[in-house]
Amino acid sequence: MDVTAPVARLATAAALLLRLLTARSLQPSHAGALLRADDEGLHLIATDGEVVVHLRTPATVHTPGEVVVPRRAVADTLTTLDAADARLTVQGGRLAIRVPGGRFALPSLPDAAPRPGHLPPPRGTVTGDDLRTAAVPVAGAASREHALPMFTGVRLRTHDTALTLFATDRFRLAAASIPWQGATAAGFDPASGGDGRIEALVPAAVLARAAQQLSRVPAVHVHAGDDLFALSWDGGSITTATIGGGYPDAQLSRLLDVTPACTVEADADALAHAVDRATAYGGPHGRVTLQAIDGALLVRADDPLTGESEQTVKATVDGGHTIRSFQGRLLLDALRAFAHHTVRLRFQEGMRATACTADLPTATLTYLVVPLRTPPSTDT
Amino acid sequence: MDVTAPVARLATAAALLLRLLTARSLQPSHAGALLRADDEGLHLIATDGEVVVHLRTPATVHTPGEVVVPRRAVADTLTTLDAADARLTVQGGRLAIRVPGGRFALPSLPDAAPRPGHLPPPRGTVTGDDLRTAAVPVAGAASREHALPMFTGVRLRTHDTALTLFATDRFRLAAASIPWQGATAAGFDPASGGDGRIEALVPAAVLARAAQQLSRVPAVHVHAGDDLFALSWDGGSITTATIGGGYPDAQLSRLLDVTPACTVEADADALAHAVDRATAYGGPHGRVTLQAIDGALLVRADDPLTGESEQTVKATVDGGHTIRSFQGRLLLDALRAFAHHTVRLRFQEGMRATACTADLPTATLTYLVVPLRTPPSTDT
Repeated sequence: MDVTAPVARLATAAALLLRLLTARSLQPSHAGALLRADDEGLHLIATDGEVVVHLRTPATVHTPGEVVVPRRAVADTLTTLDAADARLTVQGGRLAIRVPGGRFALPSLPDAAPRPGHLPPPRGTVTGDDLRTAAVPVAGAASREHALPMFTGVRLRTHDTALTLFATDRFRLAAASIPWQGATAAGFDPASGGDGRIEALVPAAVLARAAQQLSRVPAVHVHAGDDLFALSWDGGSITTATIGGGYPDAQLSRLLDVTPACTVEADADALAHAVDRATAYGGPHGRVTLQAIDGALLVRADDPLTGESEQTVKATVDGGHTIRSFQGRLLLDALRAFAHHTVRLRFQEGMRATACTADLPTATLTYLVVPLRTPPSTDT
Repeated sequence: MDVTAPVARLATAAALLLRLLTARSLQPSHAGALLRADDEGLHLIATDGEVVVHLRTPATVHTPGEVVVPRRAVADTLTTLDAADARLTVQGGRLAIRVPGGRFALPSLPDAAPRPGHLPPPRGTVTGDDLRTAAVPVAGAASREHALPMFTGVRLRTHDTALTLFATDRFRLAAASIPWQGATAAGFDPASGGDGRIEALVPAAVLARAAQQLSRVPAVHVHAGDDLFALSWDGGSITTATIGGGYPDAQLSRLLDVTPACTVEADADALAHAVDRATAYGGPHGRVTLQAIDGALLVRADDPLTGESEQTVKATVDGGHTIRSFQGRLLLDALRAFAHHTVRLRFQEGMRATACTADLPTATLTYLVVPLRTPPSTDT
């Protein structure tokens, strides 16, 4: 292998490779990246055991070929390097990287890196911005408890021109819907297998990490096959296994059918600040009580050890003077998903979940939080 | 106690209190802050067992008095609070904090907080900016190994109109000198006990933490007594015990008497980037070799497992073609102290330390790094 590549582009790709992969794998074969030069340019391919990332970066290929090298060393060597182009050459079991004023030689690793594989069929396309708006807060509602694999995933389903994303850890549920362009409309060859629809359960952490990194990509293509899910864009792809087993789509959809007993609108940031402060007063579980009164939400918390707090947040209130208690941290996660917006809270009867929504530019986002049982009346 | 205080000033003081104290003490009595209202305003006094911090903030005192409350709760409650003034009232064993739209009640703690004590005598004054410029890099050269208390300190000594700061962990030594205004010149009453001179050994971590926070304070007064050291400024003070035992002042001064075999000047940032990259190639100990050649420094590192690197950094070289090896991390610490400046490296004969210096606006800073024994000639 012998190529000349622009340092800045290559450094960006090497850094993105690290960010799309988790660092926690201890398997030595997961520390490498396969660098492959062919007529498409230079490919960087790596895995952490959970996802396979394949990035392409422009390069002038003098001699095609490939090598596996430690991927962190590649990224660390290229970052802050003050040169326009780098020459990468494989010589006697080493990758030599040469720039004006510097030369580096990395030992090649035993070739255990993943081979560039086929992506599952393309199903349709979303914008990176929409994907992040939807995937990051929704993935935040998924469970981190790996004993319940189903709840560690984000459910993706298409409905005509919308892609919906769902996740729940059973104490809260987040659902988002973003514009979807089916594969045929997006210009994919129908023979590639995609029918413009999708129904998949994807690891939430993987989806959130990828969505964070792709927020500026204009077109993110969504691929799904029997057991594989992938996102691809101009420059690369990330592939992961889907989570097997059924998903309670019908039950979750019913939960989103909200019948409000009281609807409240307030500035999401002001309310989040108040809930954050109150949580510190809410005892070991950070119990926070919201009470809708005329023109305001009362945010209260008290505990014999941590003290008590009562704050008033301006709000428009439509309906009865409802009172509900929540685990403050969960409520705060919900409110932060609506930062810089007016959030609408719909309180339902009894122990049914409270729904938070907002009118975002292109996405709809609903965050349900299950209330705690209201404590027996206190004397505060 | 009953006072009205501006929220922003009070929140700043509460946050500064947390930053000047370490969070690691597990003693419950170290979790509190004494709030005391008197004719000087509102005082916040707290300790972590190593330092005592005493801050003053303006307040209209309706009723003098005092209370001990959890200090983190005070800071968390006041931060992001959107109100001009807060009313603080002690009522039945609790501190009530009231702002428009919010009221909070914090349980008072058993009164184990420190009492505001006397500061040791004032010795002189420095600017906060000079103090940070000198204390942060010098403190970084102190040992973190508490088995050697003497080396965990920064030595402060005055020489006429200069305050010098020294620290060493025996592998490196940093020394700085900044302008010093003796106590009488600074306007302190001579009867207060200070003679304008100082000779103290102060915990490096405490000094660095305080200097970071005080960098914008125009006048920082330095106090020292038999066993106590303090910094005071308009708004507060921080007091700590000095480290006992002798300090090898004469030996360290001799080390600073540098006889260069070769002097090199280079851009500190470019050299630091090169050393940072090289360290990754320097094997388990991050061994990096500098070689002065005509018009440049060669930065080299190699190891059978991590590969090899050679970089050229532009430099002016005066003297023989010296070659020295260093522990990359220690060399990097030294170079980072000179960020954005041209650094001068003076290599000495044999195993004597290499001195890094730069012409800073008001301070002088010298960082000595002990070279490693040059390895037997390698074939690279």
